[in-house]
Amino acid sequence: MKNLTILGSTGSIGVNALKIVSANPDQYRVAGLSAGINRDLLLEQIAQFGPAAVAVMEQPLADELKGLLTGPGAPEVYHGVEGFMRLATLDGVDTVVSAMTGAAGLVPTYEAIRAGKDIALANKETMVMAGPLVMEEAKKRGVSILPVDSEHSAILQSMQGHSRKDIKRVILTASGGPFRGLSLSEMARVTPDQALRHPNWSMGPRISVDSATMMNKGLEVIEARWLFDLRMDQIDILIHPQSIVHSMVEYRDGSVIAQMGVPDMMIPISYALSYPRHLYNSLIPLDLEKIGTLTFERPDMGRFRCLGLALQAGTVGGSMPTVLNGANEIAVHAFLNNEIGFMEIPDLIEKTMQAHVPYPVEGIAEVMEADRWAREKATEWIRG
Amino acid sequence: MKNLTILGSTGSIGVNALKIVSANPDQYRVAGLSAGINRDLLLEQIAQFGPAAVAVMEQPLADELKGLLTGPGAPEVYHGVEGFMRLATLDGVDTVVSAMTGAAGLVPTYEAIRAGKDIALANKETMVMAGPLVMEEAKKRGVSILPVDSEHSAILQSMQGHSRKDIKRVILTASGGPFRGLSLSEMARVTPDQALRHPNWSMGPRISVDSATMMNKGLEVIEARWLFDLRMDQIDILIHPQSIVHSMVEYRDGSVIAQMGVPDMMIPISYALSYPRHLYNSLIPLDLEKIGTLTFERPDMGRFRCLGLALQAGTVGGSMPTVLNGANEIAVHAFLNNEIGFMEIPDLIEKTMQAHVPYPVEGIAEVMEADRWAREKATEWIRG
Repeated sequence: MKNLTILGSTGSIGVNALKIVSANPDQYRVAGLSAGINRDLLLEQIAQFGPAAVAVMEQPLADELKGLLTGPGAPEVYHGVEGFMRLATLDGVDTVVSAMTGAAGLVPTYEAIRAGKDIALANKETMVMAGPLVMEEAKKRGVSILPVDSEHSAILQSMQGHSRKDIKRVILTASGGPFRGLSLSEMARVTPDQALRHPNWSMGPRISVDSATMMNKGLEVIEARWLFDLRMDQIDILIHPQSIVHSMVEYRDGSVIAQMGVPDMMIPISYALSYPRHLYNSLIPLDLEKIGTLTFERPDMGRFRCLGLALQAGTVGGSMPTVLNGANEIAVHAFLNNEIGFMEIPDLIEKTMQAHVPYPVEGIAEVMEADRWAREKATEWIRG
Repeated sequence: MKNLTILGSTGSIGVNALKIVSANPDQYRVAGLSAGINRDLLLEQIAQFGPAAVAVMEQPLADELKGLLTGPGAPEVYHGVEGFMRLATLDGVDTVVSAMTGAAGLVPTYEAIRAGKDIALANKETMVMAGPLVMEEAKKRGVSILPVDSEHSAILQSMQGHSRKDIKRVILTASGGPFRGLSLSEMARVTPDQALRHPNWSMGPRISVDSATMMNKGLEVIEARWLFDLRMDQIDILIHPQSIVHSMVEYRDGSVIAQMGVPDMMIPISYALSYPRHLYNSLIPLDLEKIGTLTFERPDMGRFRCLGLALQAGTVGGSMPTVLNGANEIAVHAFLNNEIGFMEIPDLIEKTMQAHVPYPVEGIAEVMEADRWAREKATEWIRG
């Protein structure tokens, strides 16, 4: 029996993780749940899974929950950053599913690692912003960090049973997003509505835009680098519009191991929870005969400038990936609010990176400072 | 340091295995070599690798070799079935590369297993004719049987690090051979010359014809069944004309692990020798961007009747796969000699199978008897 805490239980990763818990009640129990603002769904989840504790960001919501949840078996209710940290370090919890969105997920995830919890990691920022710190801490505590992203899950699955010493490179696949076929001038006129329609995956708005700019793939390269202890130049990207091959690992004999599957997050989430076993589910299986054709092409760095910026930030290292990520969050938000155009997203990130003097990061405080700086700078430019 | 004996050292598998030995002299040493009739190449190999013993089939060749190889360090020279058995069981040998062609490879391979040698298995007949006997013996002696076939190597690599309990099915890929696009009437007029031109792999004549009829794939299904302890209905076949995905394993969560690579036997041979490590080689790596497109389709059982016959023989079990294989060897030989047409190959195999009353096989003698019976029967029909 594995005891789980789910940070971000009302998002799509959290909801899928809870589906896996209810399908396998003999294997998983929910000890902690946390949500942002989705009060009703959180209440439903509390009723169904009976966690020992819950956490929300805002105090008024926490107070409301305390009023509603009384009597024997009612969960403890925490709030704020402090509350998330308490939830992430609950006694008796084996695995923390880190599925909060954005930079806010970093601190509780880091605290969970320090408390010796295994991590099922969906929060990219944890690795992008603080990869070296997080991996060092995980190593020190003997903690496993298991990726929930389909690409990183594919890499992990393709490395299982093979020696890390034999790895030549990793090939991350990318659907290319909804604008793969557009010209530069067409891309400049893209609306938020269009950017939210991903061809293969159903995802939240932030990650849908990141997928349309391919920033998502750049962040994944940085994440892969730390998760799997690779050099930046060992990670290549291939556009694969069908999203069937989720990523590949090439070994020094020329053998390439790939993980494929229908594009459904259920598969990587369940693998992170049941690693190294594969848990039965009722998804319709992959039918390669029906799909017929898989294609691969090189990404166009001229049209997807965010990708190049991310690779550059990853190569520079230190505080730079945090600045990239912070500026990107602000830019995406501004684009979704119709404040800037689609092609101004890379402009804004590039300007912010150019204004930044990168420094080595030796603690979470420095990471958070770089994040704050980048957001402030990017916001200034949008307002200016 | 691994000591190797290579049964069939002058064939394409043997030659590639020796390339691996010369590229890695700190890891492999050749203790024994055997060949059929290629005297000159065998003499070269003896000079280069200095084995302790060699074996050939015919006594006159053995006598000639004895005359030529004298002085200190000259190898022992054995001949005949007895000679191959002595070579396969040499003291101090760790791994026997079983790369003789046809049914003749079974007995020495079986003896090598009984002597506790690990096997790098290229000889399909060993598994097709005597799978249960061979696997039982290997289990008893703690012997590893590592496939050299690209498909079975792909399956092994795709199973590494994953629990066998989680496997749902295995998908063997097939190029479809040179006649994939032909109609039934065009296939009836196919010549031996056409059948020998495989689109992706360069192979010997027997296996090229087996690939053109897809008998090869049927034999591989039977082989996979025993090697990986699967049911016949857990093994599917997909036509994949590019021969890049060498085979796949589907797990119960819907995850599919595949092994890919350029179609070069060097990769599976080296994996069988260095298992579970990947050994560096200088092959040009797989370039999916350049290949661009991978396609998959269902095999046409109406045109490739040999495939259906093989699946049927595998399902019946006992002596039937041996009869299938024996009749096929005779039929292919007759086709290559222009004695029968291409579409008469399945006719002849089917007639032989229909005339056979299958029985359980409990020893190698019974297997050899079924093989003899099938060859005699099939030969009778060709002469009649």
